[in-house]
Amino acid sequence: MKRVIILGATGSIGTQTLDVIKNFRDNFKVVGLTAYNNVDLLAQQIEEFNPEVVAVKDENKAYKLKAKINKNIEILTGQKGLQNIVEYEADLVVVAVEGIAGLLPTVKAIERGKDIALANKEVLVTAGKIVMDLAKKKKINFLPVDSEHSAILQCLRGNDKKEISRLILTASGGPFRGMKYEDLKKVTVEQTLRHPNWKMGKKITVDSATLMNKGFEVIEAKWLFDISEDKIDVIVHPQSIIHSMVEYIDGSVIAQLATADMRIPIQYALNYPTRNYINGINFLDFSITTQLTFEKPDLETFRCLSLAYEALKIGGTMTTVLNAADEIAVSLFLNKKIEFLQIAEIIEESMKEHNNIQNPTLDDIINVDKEVKEKIAKKYMR
Amino acid sequence: MKRVIILGATGSIGTQTLDVIKNFRDNFKVVGLTAYNNVDLLAQQIEEFNPEVVAVKDENKAYKLKAKINKNIEILTGQKGLQNIVEYEADLVVVAVEGIAGLLPTVKAIERGKDIALANKEVLVTAGKIVMDLAKKKKINFLPVDSEHSAILQCLRGNDKKEISRLILTASGGPFRGMKYEDLKKVTVEQTLRHPNWKMGKKITVDSATLMNKGFEVIEAKWLFDISEDKIDVIVHPQSIIHSMVEYIDGSVIAQLATADMRIPIQYALNYPTRNYINGINFLDFSITTQLTFEKPDLETFRCLSLAYEALKIGGTMTTVLNAADEIAVSLFLNKKIEFLQIAEIIEESMKEHNNIQNPTLDDIINVDKEVKEKIAKKYMR
Repeated sequence: MKRVIILGATGSIGTQTLDVIKNFRDNFKVVGLTAYNNVDLLAQQIEEFNPEVVAVKDENKAYKLKAKINKNIEILTGQKGLQNIVEYEADLVVVAVEGIAGLLPTVKAIERGKDIALANKEVLVTAGKIVMDLAKKKKINFLPVDSEHSAILQCLRGNDKKEISRLILTASGGPFRGMKYEDLKKVTVEQTLRHPNWKMGKKITVDSATLMNKGFEVIEAKWLFDISEDKIDVIVHPQSIIHSMVEYIDGSVIAQLATADMRIPIQYALNYPTRNYINGINFLDFSITTQLTFEKPDLETFRCLSLAYEALKIGGTMTTVLNAADEIAVSLFLNKKIEFLQIAEIIEESMKEHNNIQNPTLDDIINVDKEVKEKIAKKYMR
Repeated sequence: MKRVIILGATGSIGTQTLDVIKNFRDNFKVVGLTAYNNVDLLAQQIEEFNPEVVAVKDENKAYKLKAKINKNIEILTGQKGLQNIVEYEADLVVVAVEGIAGLLPTVKAIERGKDIALANKEVLVTAGKIVMDLAKKKKINFLPVDSEHSAILQCLRGNDKKEISRLILTASGGPFRGMKYEDLKKVTVEQTLRHPNWKMGKKITVDSATLMNKGFEVIEAKWLFDISEDKIDVIVHPQSIIHSMVEYIDGSVIAQLATADMRIPIQYALNYPTRNYINGINFLDFSITTQLTFEKPDLETFRCLSLAYEALKIGGTMTTVLNAADEIAVSLFLNKKIEFLQIAEIIEESMKEHNNIQNPTLDDIINVDKEVKEKIAKKYMR
């Protein structure tokens, strides 16, 4: 019986994780769940999965939750709660909270020797080196939950890392694929949120449209698979069927294909290295999926991807700046304070202004994140 | 240093195998080579690779070969020579001879505990059960050399066989893809020999046009990977970039992609499980390979593929009949004695007339092969 804690249980990945766990009731015990705002859903999850502990945003939410449940379970609160919940006895922590809030709980969970299933970008984008060094030292399994890195993990299975020629991350290209810089001047928030293949949160949908999402994945891939950024390529593949590939030195490319269903990579991380059938999963049907296409990414139009490679090459806290600036810029765009193309501009400006710290501590990273966000907010939020 | 014997050294696979070995001079010692007719090329290979023993078709060829070489090496002859050469001390025997002539030498090599790299269809199509049972008993590595089975072997790497949902063999579809039964009535030998992606011998090129080649591969896959035929699918993929795939129970499909270069699967078998770089190999470039497509195979038009599934389901000597009848029918077609569509008709007729032997010996298989061939030859070669 694997004991599991889910940070961010009421979000898209969190609910799908519980959906997958339902398929394997005998294999998993849900120990802990956290939610930020959605205490209604958390209350339902408590009834269904009977955790030992939960965490919510604050005392007010804790109070509301208590009124909704019949069970007498421990309720933690705040950022502290998120860090304390991982102290509970568990084998695996699913990190599905959004933002840099995921960083310290992940580090703490690794320090306690728990395996990690990661569905949070910021952990590796901002602190990849620190986190993976610690994961190696603690000899834990550090498993990606997103479809691209799960694909790469599967394509590496049974192979020798020394024989890798390059990793090939696939990108859908987003709703603005094929458009030129000039065309992007007038795109609206509504157009940006129309992702062709995946239903996701607003932030990640905008990041898909700018290709920053792929930039983050390049950074994550470097740390997850311990491979130099010049061996990580991005190819646009609009159908999102091939989720990523690994090219080997003998000329063979191994690819993982699947329907666009996040329960597949979630299952892979939960049961790793065992593959299991999940009820209701759609299998690929090559009489429906009759065509896969590939294009080079347009790095001049979609500058965020270039900025990500640049930040990764510089290293240190520069990827933290990339991430923090993107988060605020996307939020400004969603609130119609800036235009689509200003997202990349704000990020580039922040990177230029940053005094890089080459070997940062976790505190440095958290401080840089905060400073960059405040600076941009101050300038643009009027 | 791996000691290697190559049966069929002067054919397409044989010469490419030596080409690959040139890349790894320190890893391989060529112990034995065989040729049927081409003593000129064999003489060159002897000069270059310095084997301990060779075998040729007959005494006449042996005499001619002696006159061409300066070395005093052992020269064996005939079918006996092919069987005796595998008695020489070696780690790996590459079986690249054509036809049922490959069967007994392969069996003998396995009995002697040698690993096999198989580039001969008949061994597994006619005697898959006997050969693989023996290979298991002798605990040898039995490695496929063709691109499809090499792809599957790569897609299975590191995975648990219990988690396979199905094998998906890709087929180019040949030169007549998209044509209907009526259209095939008038196709010529010349049209049949125009394969879109691979340069191969005439027999296998015709087998690609009828899809019988894919039928043989389904049969081989069953024995190679010990999997039931209802879990082996064929999908037409005209670009021949994905060489085959494995679908797992979790909904993931793992695929192997590469350029159409036989040195890739040859290298994989020779160095298994190590992947190595081969000089001059073309890597995939997704700015050139921009599209992959899939179609269902048309089993009504290309009846040979259905016949292969049928023979496999019946089992016993029925696949031997399939193979023998195909060999003669293709030969009759190449000699313009019959029409393209008669190939399938002759095979079906032979299968209908056959009294199946459910658990045949090697002798049974060799006798059935001979009888079927003689019967068809008698009827059609006038």
